[in-house]
Amino acid sequence: MAAAAPPPPPTAAPEPNMVPETSPIGHPVFSRIRLATPLDVPFIHKLIHQMAVFERLTHLFSATESNLSSSLFTSPPFKSFTVFLLEVSRSPFPATLPSPDFTPLLKTHNLDLPIEDPESHNFTPDTLNDVAVAGFVLFFPNYSSFLAKPGFYIEDIFVREPYRRKGFGSMLLTAVAKQAVKMGYGRVEWVVLDWNANAIKFYEQMGAQILQEWRVCRLTGDALQAFDNVNI
Amino acid sequence: MAAAAPPPPPTAAPEPNMVPETSPIGHPVFSRIRLATPLDVPFIHKLIHQMAVFERLTHLFSATESNLSSSLFTSPPFKSFTVFLLEVSRSPFPATLPSPDFTPLLKTHNLDLPIEDPESHNFTPDTLNDVAVAGFVLFFPNYSSFLAKPGFYIEDIFVREPYRRKGFGSMLLTAVAKQAVKMGYGRVEWVVLDWNANAIKFYEQMGAQILQEWRVCRLTGDALQAFDNVNI
Repeated sequence: MAAAAPPPPPTAAPEPNMVPETSPIGHPVFSRIRLATPLDVPFIHKLIHQMAVFERLTHLFSATESNLSSSLFTSPPFKSFTVFLLEVSRSPFPATLPSPDFTPLLKTHNLDLPIEDPESHNFTPDTLNDVAVAGFVLFFPNYSSFLAKPGFYIEDIFVREPYRRKGFGSMLLTAVAKQAVKMGYGRVEWVVLDWNANAIKFYEQMGAQILQEWRVCRLTGDALQAFDNVNI
Repeated sequence: MAAAAPPPPPTAAPEPNMVPETSPIGHPVFSRIRLATPLDVPFIHKLIHQMAVFERLTHLFSATESNLSSSLFTSPPFKSFTVFLLEVSRSPFPATLPSPDFTPLLKTHNLDLPIEDPESHNFTPDTLNDVAVAGFVLFFPNYSSFLAKPGFYIEDIFVREPYRRKGFGSMLLTAVAKQAVKMGYGRVEWVVLDWNANAIKFYEQMGAQILQEWRVCRLTGDALQAFDNVNI
């Protein structure tokens, strides 16, 4: 399902690595956006389930780690279904060499209060480095025939509860938008619930238009399966 | 842009090739749905332009044949952007061998009146066979993380004016739905304008749900380009 409860847009966030670890004020937090790999499927599965709980749509949730493994990562990054993971740590991430696919994006935050994450043990890919997976964005190419150009469609953007309202949702959306520009794509699109006024305001501040006249049509379940026996 | 003015659903249409050419009643018309190829780009370009005119959205239309050629047909069929063409003829289409990609779908119609198509010269891929391109559907994979399965998103479904209200729109939608079932996909989705009551009724009759609460968000043009200079 679609974008859930993004935090407000960032306000004059510091540049990456501009806040030294020894800053006398606040609590420095280091974040990284990187491409997910098949090893991240357990985290992706838990994140999608938390999103379903948040959206009160667990009755629609039937993803398994096995199904995610076999359906994601079937193409090179950005050519089909692609996941960016957001990781957060109290220690700086190691410097990364530029990659032909995607060079991880780093940012340092200086928070007033430390982040308490009681679930961090379920979201730690690397215990040595005190890293927790805090969110993700799942997106894939779409197409505008009027522009005759691809774009990106964002299926999910989600930040775990302890990490909300700190600019991380904006980071994830920005990462996708920057990648779209880099690839010469024409649009980034997603959907939002019409009653989610906070999210709509946030998206408009990010520069998005909300298309009021269009409705999503969905053929699924038995109604879709029935076409197996239908002649054209 | 999205689905335009589909015809009503088919009513007890005859099976393919069940109406002999010499039928004393009506006007037999033969139709075929096949995968488009790069050679079809001139037709696809004209169809998309007609769709923009129909939707009164020509101010958003900037596709060129060159852009279509370079952005479509970059992946095997169904893996990314895919176009089915609808062709119509007064003569039967030749039998086609099954294909690993997509075996063309054939249907014979018996119409009360012959179809007058004053523009057929602009839409004829093969003059010898009296064939006219009558419509198209452009679609590509999307992803449901709740199902952990791909689906198809239909970006465009369009039938040229002389061929409307004869079941051809239903044929194109059915062809995509059948392909989704064949591939084990979980959903087919598209969008419709909320004031297009005829289209909504048609889609509901085809088994689709209209999701009333979701709104499409779009980041495009200068608002998207601005992200080139934004830090995460």
